[in-house]
Amino acid sequence: MNIQEIIAKKRDKRELSKEEIEYFVTNYTNGTILDYQAAALTMAIYINGMTEEETTNLTLAMAHSGDILDLSEFGTVVDKHSTGGIGDKVTLILAPIIASLGIPVAKMSGRGLGYTGGTIDKLESIPGYQTNISIEEFRKNVGKIGISLMGQTLNLAPADKKLYALRDTIAATESIPLISSSIMSKKIAAGANKIVLDVTCGSGAFMKDLDQATRLAETMKKIGELAKKETICVLTPMEEPLGETVGNALEVIEAVEALQGKISEDVQEVILTLGAYMIKLAGRGDDIEENKQKMLMQIQNGKALQKLKELIEAQGGDIAYIENLELLPKAKYVMPVVSIKYGYVKTLNAKNVGEISMYLGAGRIKKEDSIDPTVGISLKKKIGDKVEENEVLAYVYANSEEKGKEAVRQLAECYEIVTEKVEKQSSILKVI
Amino acid sequence: MNIQEIIAKKRDKRELSKEEIEYFVTNYTNGTILDYQAAALTMAIYINGMTEEETTNLTLAMAHSGDILDLSEFGTVVDKHSTGGIGDKVTLILAPIIASLGIPVAKMSGRGLGYTGGTIDKLESIPGYQTNISIEEFRKNVGKIGISLMGQTLNLAPADKKLYALRDTIAATESIPLISSSIMSKKIAAGANKIVLDVTCGSGAFMKDLDQATRLAETMKKIGELAKKETICVLTPMEEPLGETVGNALEVIEAVEALQGKISEDVQEVILTLGAYMIKLAGRGDDIEENKQKMLMQIQNGKALQKLKELIEAQGGDIAYIENLELLPKAKYVMPVVSIKYGYVKTLNAKNVGEISMYLGAGRIKKEDSIDPTVGISLKKKIGDKVEENEVLAYVYANSEEKGKEAVRQLAECYEIVTEKVEKQSSILKVI
Repeated sequence: MNIQEIIAKKRDKRELSKEEIEYFVTNYTNGTILDYQAAALTMAIYINGMTEEETTNLTLAMAHSGDILDLSEFGTVVDKHSTGGIGDKVTLILAPIIASLGIPVAKMSGRGLGYTGGTIDKLESIPGYQTNISIEEFRKNVGKIGISLMGQTLNLAPADKKLYALRDTIAATESIPLISSSIMSKKIAAGANKIVLDVTCGSGAFMKDLDQATRLAETMKKIGELAKKETICVLTPMEEPLGETVGNALEVIEAVEALQGKISEDVQEVILTLGAYMIKLAGRGDDIEENKQKMLMQIQNGKALQKLKELIEAQGGDIAYIENLELLPKAKYVMPVVSIKYGYVKTLNAKNVGEISMYLGAGRIKKEDSIDPTVGISLKKKIGDKVEENEVLAYVYANSEEKGKEAVRQLAECYEIVTEKVEKQSSILKVI
Repeated sequence: MNIQEIIAKKRDKRELSKEEIEYFVTNYTNGTILDYQAAALTMAIYINGMTEEETTNLTLAMAHSGDILDLSEFGTVVDKHSTGGIGDKVTLILAPIIASLGIPVAKMSGRGLGYTGGTIDKLESIPGYQTNISIEEFRKNVGKIGISLMGQTLNLAPADKKLYALRDTIAATESIPLISSSIMSKKIAAGANKIVLDVTCGSGAFMKDLDQATRLAETMKKIGELAKKETICVLTPMEEPLGETVGNALEVIEAVEALQGKISEDVQEVILTLGAYMIKLAGRGDDIEENKQKMLMQIQNGKALQKLKELIEAQGGDIAYIENLELLPKAKYVMPVVSIKYGYVKTLNAKNVGEISMYLGAGRIKKEDSIDPTVGISLKKKIGDKVEENEVLAYVYANSEEKGKEAVRQLAECYEIVTEKVEKQSSILKVI
């Protein structure tokens, strides 16, 4: 077996065997197969596609290219993952609710890159919270309080890491087999037995339309089936940002307020749907509506918020900041974006909002960049909302007056306001 | 403009503009575009193809990526090039014939790599012959005696050199736009105004069948037209080696004997056809049959052989070796390959014969390898020939007894002998 033969096979639209895919992944990870050979194979895969079998074999080979986190001591662990969005604070709200129901949450999360944020960055805006704890401590926390959220300290799926970085430089990102194997390999390496995926769809997501998102979801579901990791995909829109805030500390505040019962409609619907399927996969209830009620109960009785505090305390964070959100570090400037006309919000492009937030310092351009937890955007009006002339559309949180003013100018342009009434969009598109 | 956009365009089967192709070639040559990005684009070109315009633009961009040899002082210079064959001593015979007719021959030739030989290696088996003369000396020789054959000392088409080496490692060699632009870019950089191409076809050639070879020839002809370098392609078979010998000094001997009038039928037909079209392109005669007669005349009256001697003398070679071929260095062992049965030669695989010759030391595996000018193979029987039991099929010329014996064993296996009569194959398949 050699890499040229493998490239030639895919180049000629033939199916690669399990052994050929494993040969590629092993030897690319150890550096025997070079970047330009991997680039040629990747482009051939992009153009000629892969069968479900091939995609599953690629997923499993990448999952096994590094460490595998063994969570079997906790029984069935259901992982939740989003394909990326703007203002996505779902994990911060959902994980404590699920853990408060006695279902273990043992989750390694990523940092943000580009205009999408990362749960780990958001958690780090809580003073003291440690995301790089040891695996022993991680296990101890899950065992004791039923939840731990940490950064990726293990060498999970290094083949995926290499291939992901390469794809970005060769215009080979938007490929269903490559995206789905990348996501699923990380989930499998991170020890999940069952997986609920939030597949985002729209201008702010990888998948721009429902057809594409559906194909991605179906592929990942099939990989889950073939890899014996039962998977459910919830398709959610990502035309406008999720919820009311974009930015690290701002999203923590929104998440805590959600667990206190003050939750926006779109966030609630996404959280309840994803959670209801997690409960189902965990074998704790087949009725989706009933599961949603159980979750709402955990908010109302304060148990979910209590679980979040336990988590923060266990990982070194200071819960005083959660009990009094006013204490969290604040940006120097808070500047309103004001509507110059009356009407209804028709569009509020999520990607643009994400980019403005990144420009303010909330996100990273390069992996090495540091982020500013305090900056970001608070959206007072979203798609479908009625707006008066001179009414505040949003607030910009900035630490530089100049950047703040520029962000206000740009954010004003993100809002398209029309005189005809606009329907609110549904928060769940499909469950697969 | 950036490379990701260019890759994405070809990935999506769209046509690249002249500017995009030039951007790629310039920045790949200077190292700004990296090998893995070039690999991805190359694979996209391989799979999705290129239009004639794109292929021509790629050719011209690669031709202009380094030095361009300016031969305008000599008027119309017609270059001849072969896409590669076994036992191809055509240039050694054809160039002196053409020069003896007063048509300038100014040719930079390559060395052999793999199982195909190179004209420069063959010339170097003549003691004293200098292939790395200066450009000034090269011009002086063409001016004075009408001919010079030298190695590639200029930095001709460096983009092609880089891309060619890359293609080999990523299974992207057999692509019509990539092969044709590679060949034509080198010819254009080497200063040709008009080009006659010997497009080989068969088991010993890049192009395995007539359809493929025809498509390659048509593409190169079209590039020539668009680049204003009139091009004629002669398709010749490469199932069995051309002529009677494979190996450097052995082929020099065959070439000199050809110029003395002792020429095998297949070599004569190929030489006369290629040469007749060169004369036509040089504007020295439109009648192909008449041109062939003129060439035969130059053999009969000794002027072609005289021109070869002038060339050798001008480049420092000792013509005593040409006047007495017995003086040329000889291999230590000459071993016969004997037929064990009566019949007709049905197949004699050119590629296998080339590989045996390379095994004996006549060719290079890596560019840095040195070659042994004395070793090789002399074929006494070729396809269609009648063979008696115990008759000699061929001779192996070796400098190691062990290698010689192994070569005899392998060469015997190359001969397929059948009892039914076999037709001799035609030496010219098509002219395009």
